[in-house]
Amino acid sequence: MQNTTYLPMIYKISALEKIINDSIQNLSFEESPNTLFEPIRYILSLGAKRVRPVFTLLAANLFSEEVDHAISPALAIEIFHNFSLLHDDLMDRADLRRGHATVHTKWNENTAILSGDAMLIEAFLQIAKVPSERLSQVFDLFSKTALEVCRGQQYDMDFETRTDVSEDEYIEMVRLKTAVLIACALKMGALVSGAPEIDADLLYRFGINIGIAFQLRDDLLDVYGDSKTFGKKIGGDIVCNKKTFLLIKALEKANNSQRKELEKWFNDVDSDPDAKIEAVRNIYDALHLKTVSENIIEQYYLMAMDCFSSIDVPDWRKSELLTMAENLMYREK
Amino acid sequence: MQNTTYLPMIYKISALEKIINDSIQNLSFEESPNTLFEPIRYILSLGAKRVRPVFTLLAANLFSEEVDHAISPALAIEIFHNFSLLHDDLMDRADLRRGHATVHTKWNENTAILSGDAMLIEAFLQIAKVPSERLSQVFDLFSKTALEVCRGQQYDMDFETRTDVSEDEYIEMVRLKTAVLIACALKMGALVSGAPEIDADLLYRFGINIGIAFQLRDDLLDVYGDSKTFGKKIGGDIVCNKKTFLLIKALEKANNSQRKELEKWFNDVDSDPDAKIEAVRNIYDALHLKTVSENIIEQYYLMAMDCFSSIDVPDWRKSELLTMAENLMYREK
Repeated sequence: MQNTTYLPMIYKISALEKIINDSIQNLSFEESPNTLFEPIRYILSLGAKRVRPVFTLLAANLFSEEVDHAISPALAIEIFHNFSLLHDDLMDRADLRRGHATVHTKWNENTAILSGDAMLIEAFLQIAKVPSERLSQVFDLFSKTALEVCRGQQYDMDFETRTDVSEDEYIEMVRLKTAVLIACALKMGALVSGAPEIDADLLYRFGINIGIAFQLRDDLLDVYGDSKTFGKKIGGDIVCNKKTFLLIKALEKANNSQRKELEKWFNDVDSDPDAKIEAVRNIYDALHLKTVSENIIEQYYLMAMDCFSSIDVPDWRKSELLTMAENLMYREK
Repeated sequence: MQNTTYLPMIYKISALEKIINDSIQNLSFEESPNTLFEPIRYILSLGAKRVRPVFTLLAANLFSEEVDHAISPALAIEIFHNFSLLHDDLMDRADLRRGHATVHTKWNENTAILSGDAMLIEAFLQIAKVPSERLSQVFDLFSKTALEVCRGQQYDMDFETRTDVSEDEYIEMVRLKTAVLIACALKMGALVSGAPEIDADLLYRFGINIGIAFQLRDDLLDVYGDSKTFGKKIGGDIVCNKKTFLLIKALEKANNSQRKELEKWFNDVDSDPDAKIEAVRNIYDALHLKTVSENIIEQYYLMAMDCFSSIDVPDWRKSELLTMAENLMYREK
């Protein structure tokens, strides 16, 4: 039964986004030297969607009427996420991030290395603010997750030079590189609100499944998305031979002539990007990879929902978190 | 009065070095992918002197008969120190570290970036093992120190393009880049042994002063040391125009002709290294910078000893820590 006196205590997603953006603004990073902290302020100001820290606050709000106590771990997650983008962009030699120059492009490589290091430490400084009775558990989870994200990034880089990556290996890479941080964001929110362990773990598993589904959907949208709403150029992954779920499935299912054609496009560094995108997409079409992808995404989404519905919190408290998950998954439907 | 029943509880430096080396060996870093962890095992195996973690154990042993509880923070300090060397060597484009190829030379830049990130996280994973009743204090100190080290490194890089660095700015850079980590190593050892706050703070100040004295001595030995015992080529800092204490004092004290000569050598990228070393050293000699340096090093050393003697622990418990400080300072006398 809905208890109307509780309703005002459920924060809307937009209110939580504002809390996160205001809190990031207040961090200021005004210590000296400015050469170290200016790039940190810059990358944190590049209009991110704040998905992960909002997840932390939403999870905290499942078990607590207030969310203030969850702001520090939420900021830790967002700072860590932006640290990983900063160093990943450097390693990938990417020029643009959210439509703006990347830090190593706007400044230089050394600045990107050291400001990234400082951000990773700043993330831990936020974790250090968690009250001592919850600190050990939260710190442990966050550190282990941070290392998993590094492992995922290393797998992703290792896959670049391989053509025999299996579906299982790919899913494991996605779990490490993308899903564990979402899962950690959710579980930390639950932990700082004193949630029962079983519910915190269900939120973690919800996060893993939604995280994998999200990344597989990102892979799908690179090929079959609408460039107006996707926010990136369609076919970007195909042009740079990125090992996506679609490409891995294609290499697994291709007949000899399809495989030869795929390999020809990989090795042809001077090919016309549009011709390459069309040719590779034709092979994906012939192998029905859009449907194959959609089916597996649906499987992970259903597993996520299964975990979510088992969390022992009344449905009316869960509605914003459910909306957030749907926004993440169906931003293009 | 010496209590002989306590004597066996004072660990010798060599015994503590063995504890650290064995503990590092046991860390193993055998998670996958190997491409991420092999460089970490490599840099940690390059015959380091383990000065900082031994300081942690020595400080712990001042206040406790056992040191096992201080091994995790000691490892955190050593892993963090090696992380900072790994990224600093990449930023400095240095080919050699302790006589071996640096990680970015042996592997590549991306490996150096990501394995370094993983090491920084591994350091925090060691901190996370500190018992929960001391965790908050130790974690807070370690995180703040880690950020200070990054700030020191950024100042050092910023100084490369400046010729107006003051003595105060230089000492502040050295405090951040070198001294705070030694001070943190010592204070963490005291904290995990439950030392009184006043003694933990005295150890911290001892560490700051000994750290600054150590770096100033390193600057001095680059010019006036004996290449056989110094372990690095004499004059290396002069050849690469490194802003050392000597150079900063020279720029401050030089007359017009000396300043012009110094600037000529800075800007002459094709100069003979030996001729440059001799010419710059002649200017240092004329300005009596060896004596100036020795005097200021002595001042910091005396301040360190002043803090050390105020620590409320019997002298017979302090002897190994005193020997360690002397070893650090007088390795060339």
